[in-house]
Amino acid sequence: MERVLIVPWGNPFQWDSITYEYGGCRMKSSSTLPVLINALKPEKILIFTLDTLANIQVRGKPDIEPKDFKRYSEVVEDVQSRIKWFIENELSSDFPDSAEMLKDGRIDIVVAPGVGLFKNINVEGDLLDFYNYALYVLSTKLPSNNLEVYLDLTHGINFMPTLLYRALNNLLGISAFINDCRLVVLNSEPYPQGFQRDEKESIIPITTLHIRTVEDIVLRPKPIYSRVEDNKLSAFISSLANGLPLVFTTFYPELNELKTLIDEELAEFLKNIEVNGIHISRSRGFSNDFKTLTKIYYFIRCLNLSHEMFGGLPKEEVSIDTLECLVELIFKKIRRLEIITKRDVRQIRDTIKKAIKKEGKIRDKLRAGEKLLYLDVYNFAKDRSIPKKDKIDPRDFVAHSGLISDLIYVRLREDDELLSYVDYDKVIELSIKSMWSDWV
Amino acid sequence: MERVLIVPWGNPFQWDSITYEYGGCRMKSSSTLPVLINALKPEKILIFTLDTLANIQVRGKPDIEPKDFKRYSEVVEDVQSRIKWFIENELSSDFPDSAEMLKDGRIDIVVAPGVGLFKNINVEGDLLDFYNYALYVLSTKLPSNNLEVYLDLTHGINFMPTLLYRALNNLLGISAFINDCRLVVLNSEPYPQGFQRDEKESIIPITTLHIRTVEDIVLRPKPIYSRVEDNKLSAFISSLANGLPLVFTTFYPELNELKTLIDEELAEFLKNIEVNGIHISRSRGFSNDFKTLTKIYYFIRCLNLSHEMFGGLPKEEVSIDTLECLVELIFKKIRRLEIITKRDVRQIRDTIKKAIKKEGKIRDKLRAGEKLLYLDVYNFAKDRSIPKKDKIDPRDFVAHSGLISDLIYVRLREDDELLSYVDYDKVIELSIKSMWSDWV
Repeated sequence: MERVLIVPWGNPFQWDSITYEYGGCRMKSSSTLPVLINALKPEKILIFTLDTLANIQVRGKPDIEPKDFKRYSEVVEDVQSRIKWFIENELSSDFPDSAEMLKDGRIDIVVAPGVGLFKNINVEGDLLDFYNYALYVLSTKLPSNNLEVYLDLTHGINFMPTLLYRALNNLLGISAFINDCRLVVLNSEPYPQGFQRDEKESIIPITTLHIRTVEDIVLRPKPIYSRVEDNKLSAFISSLANGLPLVFTTFYPELNELKTLIDEELAEFLKNIEVNGIHISRSRGFSNDFKTLTKIYYFIRCLNLSHEMFGGLPKEEVSIDTLECLVELIFKKIRRLEIITKRDVRQIRDTIKKAIKKEGKIRDKLRAGEKLLYLDVYNFAKDRSIPKKDKIDPRDFVAHSGLISDLIYVRLREDDELLSYVDYDKVIELSIKSMWSDWV
Repeated sequence: MERVLIVPWGNPFQWDSITYEYGGCRMKSSSTLPVLINALKPEKILIFTLDTLANIQVRGKPDIEPKDFKRYSEVVEDVQSRIKWFIENELSSDFPDSAEMLKDGRIDIVVAPGVGLFKNINVEGDLLDFYNYALYVLSTKLPSNNLEVYLDLTHGINFMPTLLYRALNNLLGISAFINDCRLVVLNSEPYPQGFQRDEKESIIPITTLHIRTVEDIVLRPKPIYSRVEDNKLSAFISSLANGLPLVFTTFYPELNELKTLIDEELAEFLKNIEVNGIHISRSRGFSNDFKTLTKIYYFIRCLNLSHEMFGGLPKEEVSIDTLECLVELIFKKIRRLEIITKRDVRQIRDTIKKAIKKEGKIRDKLRAGEKLLYLDVYNFAKDRSIPKKDKIDPRDFVAHSGLISDLIYVRLREDDELLSYVDYDKVIELSIKSMWSDWV
């Protein structure tokens, strides 16, 4: 299980040194980072900072000249260099590996869009840009397997801790369909206040702050409920929430296409940041779909890594074996959905087996590998004569896990029973209506 | 729709005055409270503070003598009086109604357990006590109907914003089964920093801070997944997550019993807070079940208010009409669960109707109002002879919405078909196993 440490940081040049304790380790430092890295030994550390730290200098630190910015990339680089300076100069006595960790990327400094007027910089824009950007960064940088994420709130300011918590809850909740995901939230006891401080801390009557666990949860799968502009993607979202395995395989999104959509929007966002000296102005926020796209992107990353089956999706036609395997993988933590979708998939197999054992045209066509409407196979196998329906009720569509006999083709290929949809437009419509018709 | 404003507050005596803007209102104040009350006109305002504010005084404010505390209730009263002083003296010029709002309880000052060493007070204990206590306060003070909650993070410190956000997400998520719940998270732009301040603000180059929306969501129903010590309650929890309507009505908890359990634990928590001068030490935290109990308590409050049917629960025997009504109320926002549980309930009614139309002993017994095993009625109606099973698979139990024919009695009373369980212990066991057997 991989372990990631995530720390939102306000202005580190304001922090005073004290001994932090966590998990049996004690280290004197201006931040919780050294002791957390020492105790947790995370594979990856993400430090979330804000662009409002550009040009920051407190009591002469860091020893970096302020700049007259022309491009947003310069702002980001400036903040990164200041945070690097802090890590290398203010933490390093207790934290000798920091330079190497920065070099090999184990420590990653994220500079996210902030808002506010400060003497060093003035940033105008939407507060929510932070959330969208954080979600994007996490969706690309978080490992996509079983995961333990530690979020330390100690040094975060304003909206940072709450929005990072929200982003992690959403992303780990979607990964939790397939992976084991744990989220541990930490917070140090507060720095002693109201006491006079001196170099030897002789007047501060406390010398150790304990870092405490504020939350420790194993995440449950959390479906996505937002509809997006792209109808195929919306059908895919519905397939996950409602247990529609053949919709899932038919409209499984391509990772690269998702990445392109997301990167294009991010590029547009960055292009629309005006930078003029110490004035930064963001004229364009993110679209409503952006959050959902990043979540799906992370989900597909997790799926493609977890099992080779997903690498072969989307597929127009899939075997019942594949659908059964899929149901077991995706819905293993949602018992009810697993049990009922599996039963519905198996019933189709049983019916096909029954049809093959009977004498008749349908049997012959099946044996010849012809694609047949499943309703015809069903009527043949069960000696029924249910007519084709003109209109399918979305409620029936959901109640049968999307496996409506009017809508499915059946074909035999060697030992495999292959299923495919008859009419994609109708399936997309039903998948969407079954999720977003009556309620928002 | 009722509207509640929730504000976590750090130390208000450190805040400087500035003009805040929100929803078209602008007011100069040391906090966001006046402009938010003016713009939102909430029915209720909850100010969350920490007991670490006891005896606080900054630059001579508030004008209240520090105390030598003997009891925790004195600590709470001290913090409340200081916060009242702040509201009445530091906000009132722009906020003339504040005294009245405090008197009539529209503004409620919550003093929650904190942690930390400060010159004014020293509090030792578990950081998580804050979360448990906040959950308790919210579960009793939040209105139990359709609700809009505004959470303003601006003045919160440390873990307060994130834990209140988490508590609200959980409580509104459980209320969302039956109510429309909206959560809006706000945050002001940060106070300008690095500039010299004077009384006329002539050197601060900004005079207005806009309060921004950080999140605005309509909550989806969020089931509880934690098992508790009390097996009947665990069965009830499973009934909500898995769609087991007859388990729901049979094991519906009594509001008063829940309240007693919760209050007893809270009393124990408070009793174990040692207070000695300015030293406060909490030796006992909350049990693991406490969080879950407060969530169920709030859920039952919401249900009992929403429809008279719930006031009559728990019931050993309920009509199919009641079950149908229940399914429509509880699962209206979880389409798949609504569709399938309703179908399963209706199939029982159809079978009973079929049985009544046939000649035979079972029909006669039904007409005479006798209680019969549903399996016998089913076999009679369908000319089948399915034997009673010795062992029931939890997977079958879930797949049939808990309505397994071996486990249910049927009885006719006038026009009503009444259902009840044969064996409570077995039903409790199956409800629990179907939720907590394979995964945690």
